[in-house]
Amino acid sequence: MKRATRSVDIVRIKGVAATKEKDTVVRESSVTIFLNDEPTVTLQCTPKDLESLAAGFLFSEGLIKHGKDVRRVYGDARDCAVWVDAPDGIVPPNGNLTRRTVTSGCGKGLTFAGSVKHIMGAQRRAGKSTSSDIIASLMKEFQKKSQTYRTTGGVHSAALADDHGILAFSEDIGRHNAIDKVVGERILKGKETRGLILMTSGRVSSDILVKAARARTPIIVSRSAPTDLAVKLARELGITVVGFARGSRMNVYTHGWRIESGLGGR
Amino acid sequence: MKRATRSVDIVRIKGVAATKEKDTVVRESSVTIFLNDEPTVTLQCTPKDLESLAAGFLFSEGLIKHGKDVRRVYGDARDCAVWVDAPDGIVPPNGNLTRRTVTSGCGKGLTFAGSVKHIMGAQRRAGKSTSSDIIASLMKEFQKKSQTYRTTGGVHSAALADDHGILAFSEDIGRHNAIDKVVGERILKGKETRGLILMTSGRVSSDILVKAARARTPIIVSRSAPTDLAVKLARELGITVVGFARGSRMNVYTHGWRIESGLGGR
Repeated sequence: MKRATRSVDIVRIKGVAATKEKDTVVRESSVTIFLNDEPTVTLQCTPKDLESLAAGFLFSEGLIKHGKDVRRVYGDARDCAVWVDAPDGIVPPNGNLTRRTVTSGCGKGLTFAGSVKHIMGAQRRAGKSTSSDIIASLMKEFQKKSQTYRTTGGVHSAALADDHGILAFSEDIGRHNAIDKVVGERILKGKETRGLILMTSGRVSSDILVKAARARTPIIVSRSAPTDLAVKLARELGITVVGFARGSRMNVYTHGWRIESGLGGR
Repeated sequence: MKRATRSVDIVRIKGVAATKEKDTVVRESSVTIFLNDEPTVTLQCTPKDLESLAAGFLFSEGLIKHGKDVRRVYGDARDCAVWVDAPDGIVPPNGNLTRRTVTSGCGKGLTFAGSVKHIMGAQRRAGKSTSSDIIASLMKEFQKKSQTYRTTGGVHSAALADDHGILAFSEDIGRHNAIDKVVGERILKGKETRGLILMTSGRVSSDILVKAARARTPIIVSRSAPTDLAVKLARELGITVVGFARGSRMNVYTHGWRIESGLGGR
């Protein structure tokens, strides 16, 4: 995948055998997002789909409210920068914010988003429901798409889906970045994220819940585990968390009434 | 494991069967490190071994140079805080730093550590070497110790080891936190980290290399993949990176001369 991976020389050891080979590793860059020419954040990320990453990040942090707030966006992987033009009122918090470096893997802590509580009511009323069969089928599609992972073993994937299939898909060394990329892709196209299913290969921690609340996705499906704080937040925010979704198996941690299954809702 | 996990009610779905069960999830808290009463960083972490976490974090960020700089450290998981008393000259960068929130999963980006280059020379000369057999045996011990992972599937592990076995072991929702905890444990005991093998369950990104350089661990062993930037940094810093260490298999990405195997060094 262009710009997402790189070939390196390795020694592959299997028991007593050692051979010199080529291996593919995922790329990692420090990319700075400039909001109206103001450096806003530096993220360790996979330098691909930088426009979506920037739009999704600013949206997840509550700095922009919808795709229309992005008048122009231009990413340059060689310059390690993305420039976002937004209406004048939209500025990084604290005016000239010091350049915050947030890391790979996850990065994205800033979460100037202390204030997700006002979204809760809306989510709780969102009556979106689905079934365990549909989730199993979406996970199958999700796994199939995870191309860079299969090559490098080093990335996270994220997707936005409805009951009929995956609508946006992305990969990144950071699980937060991958989610920002799919959200950004949708809003840059002027499409809704509200009511969709958010899929992630990664662990579901509290900050993932904040992203889902911002995007108004009532269901999060993960191959991996949630933390206790994520479960607590999900309960409060009215978001359904499905973990360990592998094949036809899955654990439903919160708001199980949205998932039709043998047991029905609860 | 005390304070590291919590039990929650879930619906477990397997095909058409759905049952109400208990599941164990890993705990996640926002913990603030106070350095000489100054709030320095807020980390999303597993609220266990907070003293080691604080000492290791401050050391990894270059704010303290050795264990002796920690005159007193006191962590309180209920207050979500760790207080570190250090000599007067030691203050958070920029005097009164605004409270930075760094996230789970990885968090720990700050890396006020732009300046690891001076360490490079030392690492390059560090002649520590080991063998693929020893690494395989250390990984076996590492997997055995990963207790919370087996329960929750939601944590990362880290260890410091020599050729004879694991000397410090820790788990956390964040792979950076887990590494800081083992480094912190060693320095609080007045022990060296220099020359040891750093083991991690997580991906090896550039910031992990910075931590290894600070701790002067010449070898990093991971169950998972490195990024291209981590490989580049490792090459420059003189650090050996072993990835995908599973059973008797492993990939050696850099400075293979430290790993005796069928092929010998290179």
